[in-house]
Amino acid sequence: MGIPATSIPACSAMLECYRTVRQQTADLVAPLSEADCQVQSMPDASPAKWHLGHTSWFFETFVLEPHEPGFKPCHPAFRVLFNSYYNGIGQKHPRPLRGQITRPDLAEVKAYRAQVDERIARLLRGPQSPSLLAMLETGIQHEQQHQELLLTDIQHLLSCNPLRPAYQAAPVPPRLATAGPRPMRWQAGAGGLLEIGHAGGRFCFDNESPRHRVWLRPYALASRLVTQGEWLDFIGDGGYADPRWWLAAGWDWVNAQSIRAPLYWQPPEPGERVGQWHRFSLQGQVAIDREAPVVHLSYFEADAYARWRATVSAADAGARLPTEAEWEAAAAPLEGPAVARGNFVETGALRPLPAGSAPDQETPGAQPLEQLFGDVWEWTASSYSAYPGFRPWPGVAGEYNGKFMVNQYVLRGSSCATPRSHIRASYRNFFPTEARWQFSGLRLARDLD
Amino acid sequence: MGIPATSIPACSAMLECYRTVRQQTADLVAPLSEADCQVQSMPDASPAKWHLGHTSWFFETFVLEPHEPGFKPCHPAFRVLFNSYYNGIGQKHPRPLRGQITRPDLAEVKAYRAQVDERIARLLRGPQSPSLLAMLETGIQHEQQHQELLLTDIQHLLSCNPLRPAYQAAPVPPRLATAGPRPMRWQAGAGGLLEIGHAGGRFCFDNESPRHRVWLRPYALASRLVTQGEWLDFIGDGGYADPRWWLAAGWDWVNAQSIRAPLYWQPPEPGERVGQWHRFSLQGQVAIDREAPVVHLSYFEADAYARWRATVSAADAGARLPTEAEWEAAAAPLEGPAVARGNFVETGALRPLPAGSAPDQETPGAQPLEQLFGDVWEWTASSYSAYPGFRPWPGVAGEYNGKFMVNQYVLRGSSCATPRSHIRASYRNFFPTEARWQFSGLRLARDLD
Amino acid sequence: MGIPATSIPACSAMLECYRTVRQQTADLVAPLSEADCQVQSMPDASPAKWHLGHTSWFFETFVLEPHEPGFKPCHPAFRVLFNSYYNGIGQKHPRPLRGQITRPDLAEVKAYRAQVDERIARLLRGPQSPSLLAMLETGIQHEQQHQELLLTDIQHLLSCNPLRPAYQAAPVPPRLATAGPRPMRWQAGAGGLLEIGHAGGRFCFDNESPRHRVWLRPYALASRLVTQGEWLDFIGDGGYADPRWWLAAGWDWVNAQSIRAPLYWQPPEPGERVGQWHRFSLQGQVAIDREAPVVHLSYFEADAYARWRATVSAADAGARLPTEAEWEAAAAPLEGPAVARGNFVETGALRPLPAGSAPDQETPGAQPLEQLFGDVWEWTASSYSAYPGFRPWPGVAGEYNGKFMVNQYVLRGSSCATPRSHIRASYRNFFPTEARWQFSGLRLARDLD
Amino acid sequence: MGIPATSIPACSAMLECYRTVRQQTADLVAPLSEADCQVQSMPDASPAKWHLGHTSWFFETFVLEPHEPGFKPCHPAFRVLFNSYYNGIGQKHPRPLRGQITRPDLAEVKAYRAQVDERIARLLRGPQSPSLLAMLETGIQHEQQHQELLLTDIQHLLSCNPLRPAYQAAPVPPRLATAGPRPMRWQAGAGGLLEIGHAGGRFCFDNESPRHRVWLRPYALASRLVTQGEWLDFIGDGGYADPRWWLAAGWDWVNAQSIRAPLYWQPPEPGERVGQWHRFSLQGQVAIDREAPVVHLSYFEADAYARWRATVSAADAGARLPTEAEWEAAAAPLEGPAVARGNFVETGALRPLPAGSAPDQETPGAQPLEQLFGDVWEWTASSYSAYPGFRPWPGVAGEYNGKFMVNQYVLRGSSCATPRSHIRASYRNFFPTEARWQFSGLRLARDLD
Repeated sequence: MGIPATSIPACSAMLECYRTVRQQTADLVAPLSEADCQVQSMPDASPAKWHLGHTSWFFETFVLEPHEPGFKPCHPAFRVLFNSYYNGIGQKHPRPLRGQITRPDLAEVKAYRAQVDERIARLLRGPQSPSLLAMLETGIQHEQQHQELLLTDIQHLLSCNPLRPAYQAAPVPPRLATAGPRPMRWQAGAGGLLEIGHAGGRFCFDNESPRHRVWLRPYALASRLVTQGEWLDFIGDGGYADPRWWLAAGWDWVNAQSIRAPLYWQPPEPGERVGQWHRFSLQGQVAIDREAPVVHLSYFEADAYARWRATVSAADAGARLPTEAEWEAAAAPLEGPAVARGNFVETGALRPLPAGSAPDQETPGAQPLEQLFGDVWEWTASSYSAYPGFRPWPGVAGEYNGKFMVNQYVLRGSSCATPRSHIRASYRNFFPTEARWQFSGLRLARDLD
Repeated sequence: MGIPATSIPACSAMLECYRTVRQQTADLVAPLSEADCQVQSMPDASPAKWHLGHTSWFFETFVLEPHEPGFKPCHPAFRVLFNSYYNGIGQKHPRPLRGQITRPDLAEVKAYRAQVDERIARLLRGPQSPSLLAMLETGIQHEQQHQELLLTDIQHLLSCNPLRPAYQAAPVPPRLATAGPRPMRWQAGAGGLLEIGHAGGRFCFDNESPRHRVWLRPYALASRLVTQGEWLDFIGDGGYADPRWWLAAGWDWVNAQSIRAPLYWQPPEPGERVGQWHRFSLQGQVAIDREAPVVHLSYFEADAYARWRATVSAADAGARLPTEAEWEAAAAPLEGPAVARGNFVETGALRPLPAGSAPDQETPGAQPLEQLFGDVWEWTASSYSAYPGFRPWPGVAGEYNGKFMVNQYVLRGSSCATPRSHIRASYRNFFPTEARWQFSGLRLARDLD
Repeated sequence: MGIPATSIPACSAMLECYRTVRQQTADLVAPLSEADCQVQSMPDASPAKWHLGHTSWFFETFVLEPHEPGFKPCHPAFRVLFNSYYNGIGQKHPRPLRGQITRPDLAEVKAYRAQVDERIARLLRGPQSPSLLAMLETGIQHEQQHQELLLTDIQHLLSCNPLRPAYQAAPVPPRLATAGPRPMRWQAGAGGLLEIGHAGGRFCFDNESPRHRVWLRPYALASRLVTQGEWLDFIGDGGYADPRWWLAAGWDWVNAQSIRAPLYWQPPEPGERVGQWHRFSLQGQVAIDREAPVVHLSYFEADAYARWRATVSAADAGARLPTEAEWEAAAAPLEGPAVARGNFVETGALRPLPAGSAPDQETPGAQPLEQLFGDVWEWTASSYSAYPGFRPWPGVAGEYNGKFMVNQYVLRGSSCATPRSHIRASYRNFFPTEARWQFSGLRLARDLD
Repeated sequence: MGIPATSIPACSAMLECYRTVRQQTADLVAPLSEADCQVQSMPDASPAKWHLGHTSWFFETFVLEPHEPGFKPCHPAFRVLFNSYYNGIGQKHPRPLRGQITRPDLAEVKAYRAQVDERIARLLRGPQSPSLLAMLETGIQHEQQHQELLLTDIQHLLSCNPLRPAYQAAPVPPRLATAGPRPMRWQAGAGGLLEIGHAGGRFCFDNESPRHRVWLRPYALASRLVTQGEWLDFIGDGGYADPRWWLAAGWDWVNAQSIRAPLYWQPPEPGERVGQWHRFSLQGQVAIDREAPVVHLSYFEADAYARWRATVSAADAGARLPTEAEWEAAAAPLEGPAVARGNFVETGALRPLPAGSAPDQETPGAQPLEQLFGDVWEWTASSYSAYPGFRPWPGVAGEYNGKFMVNQYVLRGSSCATPRSHIRASYRNFFPTEARWQFSGLRLARDLD
């Protein structure tokens, strides 16, 4: 394979890194019953069992098959069952039907994982070619992506159950006693001829390169994410019922689907305190937290909110979604400390937290831009497209990203379900405009003229 | 409840009967993994776990709740989760979404069954009112119906898996060495003013009563079921491609769904012997058995076959589906021996067998009408409607049958998945014209003029 | 063709009869613009232009082609464009796409009609074989059926226009000054072994034969149709919101389609008099007429009403839909006078009228069963199926009725859009359970025990 | 209204310009029957009658209503019936149901046009404020857009008719006797920091502004459009069956819709000359013209072709769709002569013509980039989004373009159905990726590194 082996992972030895990430997947699945692992609640989501099989299939197909002497497949049928979308590999089981595959059962899939792990370990005891290491690192990064999907897919499945079961018991929220609401400030970003895209030296996906020049006008980004409380104001002002805020396709969507709030939100029931909304989360049904970032938004909702917000106060005139170039230009200089302090999957919160919740964030305004990493992915105004001069990875791996570059929009940052070691400022996530089951929120931007 | 307690079940004591049937359900589920029990492969089918819960819910709701002193529900949410279609009971979880309920898991549902069993046993140690016994028997009969559905639903689920897993290992077929193909004979049935419907004295469903008069013209029934080999002739003659044989709605269905054979049939693959079809069964993928009854037909296919067959030989001119009155008038006199010898779920074959397969059927023609019970349900030309003077059971139990009397057609007999003690000549099964996942086949009829 | 030439039409000479019926079609289309004639408002309906073309195609294909020496088609493409559903004739333009055919335009289709008329007239100047006369009469009867469809299809099209245009100016209703509301009486019908079906001697469709015996229990029919006022009571009592009255499939339909009233009904707008419903009719938007028969009902609504009505007063206990045999047994003896006085298309009312509206109906109770013919078709409980011994017409004409004998229900009587000369007591109309755009209503029945 | 009145149209007096454009609309409709004008063949298309009404509604609503003293609407219902998508105006008749409105009929809509024309003329005899002139010009430009849609919508409607009627008789193609096939050359475009967007001084739509800087890498554009002959090579090479060339969403679309060729193309029938494809056009069924530009492509097809082409010859390595900035940077300097010579609606060809067909184009290579304007719209790789600093027109007119800036892609140039006076280099057309019924084709681009 021709994926450039430009880096060594953060962990000192590749095998240790591999084992750590594989164990994290097992830990995420631990609270789930076999039934939880089996069901596919919508075509966009996959069963946990499938995630377990597919991530092993990736190592088997892209690492073992080309590098293991005398390679033999673990099970011939798995090549088809656990192929996600690689036409270059051959046939694949239809995505919406993944939940119908009850055999192999969970124990067999776990045995498949164990066999792959053993063969990978044996392989790494031999000579480690650059191409082997490059694909192994790709497989590790790939597994981290599926760790996040596993959580969002489980949340969706449990949300379909009227008993509203929780994935995890609600932990004590790690909020600082002294942290009050953080006012939102506009933080200026310099325009001009800048560079974005991955600068090399460590692993990145092909869609982050090549690094290239863009011209930006002067702009500002909001100092923090939009909160659940601010979203209640939008709802209270009739935001979902006023076509002025909505793209035409968004307005059609709102009406066709009877959208009245972010995904998983539930309005106050008769007899409840006025305004007491709840939302379904990995902790089950919880009360809306006014200071925490709003999450589970579609692109349409994020975009409509910005247009509404621009009319609410003079200070926010011109509010809009940022472009991904604006976001990256502002985030890249802050990458190190911001990642270190972010609310990633490792905090165990598994939900977005109010700005200032992290221990070293307690001084309001100490950071020019808070919550850049962790908490929620931030919708941008940028359609997901190839950077100028983009080349997909060679061979079948070229299907990884390039063929999805249409009719989707870029999200930047990362979320409370993202592994910390997986992320960087040039990272590009992408989803269709209607997608809401990810940890997706927004940060506002505006022109500075 | 007002369901008439006209009978005592065949087993000497009601509790023993209850336990036997409940154990049969457990036995049917034994070969299934937790994953197998969880998934719903189409809206018409239900997860095995749901069948387990719903049949217990039926006893809890219709037996325990009205009869148990100080009744308390096992779990409040189960009243909704396991309600199939009784509006009189209250809300119900939407049928197509049954497979999304991963909690309670299988162990919890089994515990629910155990609790209901224990409370039923305790209740039966007290005074046994007629209404209690009547509803208990209804619950037992109800559970037997779900035993058959459980098997047909599992077969459908496993058919969705490209690995084609078997529910049971294929047993040695219980065919007699000397039994050759049975020629089909026309057996005359007397016409005139007859009575059909249940005559009383034992349990029956409300839809089998009242017994009433019908006028029949002279007619004949085929001595045995239509076979898989005869169906291959229909396919070979282009039967699925010729609109002459099809009802207009059937022709639309054949073309819209690209129907080319019975459900689960697969044509010969390139390189296979000419004409070597296979079909998916509870034993996995098996070769077509030319002498065994064709199964998994829609009403449209059964009807089309009869119309085609009428043109093939002069002897079969006028071939058509029987009416349910014709079928019952012919079957009732033969009920005792025919049921005793039928290929029911108890034979363990779990697939239809050639005529003459049962030990005491070896003399061809010894029985005027073979395979009347067991093997496959027989589509009739009769729309499912109320008998003259029909009254649904009183109260909520009235929803059991009456509200489905539209846009369905009656099937008579029973199948290789039916418990022997469940069946009688007046029994009316019913499904929509497109349904094929049941063990449904056909027997021909014609006028005698 | 082998359709039995059992009769001569009522008009003294066949050509005169032909011309009269063809002119009636032209008269019905006269109020329509070219645009009105072009559009198909739903797949079940056809454009008026298509009706004009298809009825001529029927004469061309079934009369001219087999009988005209040296026959040449008027236009080769019309064989496909105007074929409704005759697979034996060959290909057909898909039904839901009939409205897309803008060429031939209306003038060309009228020229096509004129050419067919001229060639029919020339043909009839030659020898008139029985088979020619039989098919000509069939074509005339067929054209009368399309006259009714033309009116119901136009009403549906105009109902889609928010301007609510009328097909005809509302005429002065021909109601008698002295006619008050007619109380509904139960009129007994004798049971026993009876005969129904066409007795021969005049034209009938194949589905009305053979005449055959049926056994009926004693029963009673309502003396008149259910009225719009009675339907308002059903609505007022929450009839559309109570599952107790509805078949399961009907309850699904009511909820999926948000059905709250008969087709074309509109509830009072804010500020209107309480209870002042309107309905869209061929006369545009009109007020509900409490004494006139309710119309534009589905089978599900008619059936639900009967079940509700059975609970409202002791006198109506056991109310249900009649079977078609009950209806025909009661109607056949009254056929002559009832047809003579019915509100058919010839009255020009083009809407159902209150019982007693016809001049010689003014004495309440003078007729045992009023409104048997004309006004509205009456849903029966009978599934549309073959009579015992039924044989479709030979050849392609056999597709006329037989292939539709599934998943539909029989309506008896006739309507305010039916030509008087078209109807008889043995006539069987049929539609699926959801169909509402026909002039469909109901008359109640019950057992007499 | 606040649309900037930056220009005076090309015609010397505004009224004359208005009348000319309005007459062009009438001329385009002249060949159509009333039936042709009535029907809507798919939700994306509108009836010709609706185009006639809507364009008049635009003048009535945006010009007469705010400027005419004592304004009264022509017909109150037209405000709803002919409102396309302006929520700020109020309710609108649902787009997919436009074809159901048979009244007003065509004559009434023409009378509506005449009344609007008369009132506009009267208004222009009074004082002409800048805002009046600006909205009048907008209305004129708007009507020109609908002229093109009217043609593409009619072509779609006629394509649904199996008789394949022509909109116009096929004219003698205006091809030069001496013009042979034009080889495709790569024409370099300079990169660097450039400006695109409308420079002011004449009318433009809001989506073309503001003019702004972009950074471009060096690139090249193909000297002419991709031809029908080149497309046959793509088909012949199995292009539609090979997932390597397709975006994932495109591959799904190709398979779900069974796409095998551009819209309206029909493969050779049995017995026809090998490779003799035809396509349906405004001239009816015509043979494929190998030298003429391919037309009626989706974005997916255009994109797939480029990816395939990049593998066919070394000279075309890296072939891709151009960005809209690349296109505009190359086209703007050539705008004057290229527009003057383009194959616009005024040539009467109404189909794309081979490069070099225009009289002053006969010297191959005389123009660096041929067919930039006219012939077919050119898909670009650019998602349709707001230019940096974009502001929609104020008020309701702001709904004109801005709210559609999502999930669509930009097409540049213009087509054989575009009025010449309507176009300019900064013009941005846009459609969803699946749209094919427009005159859409492609020109290749590639990087120069």
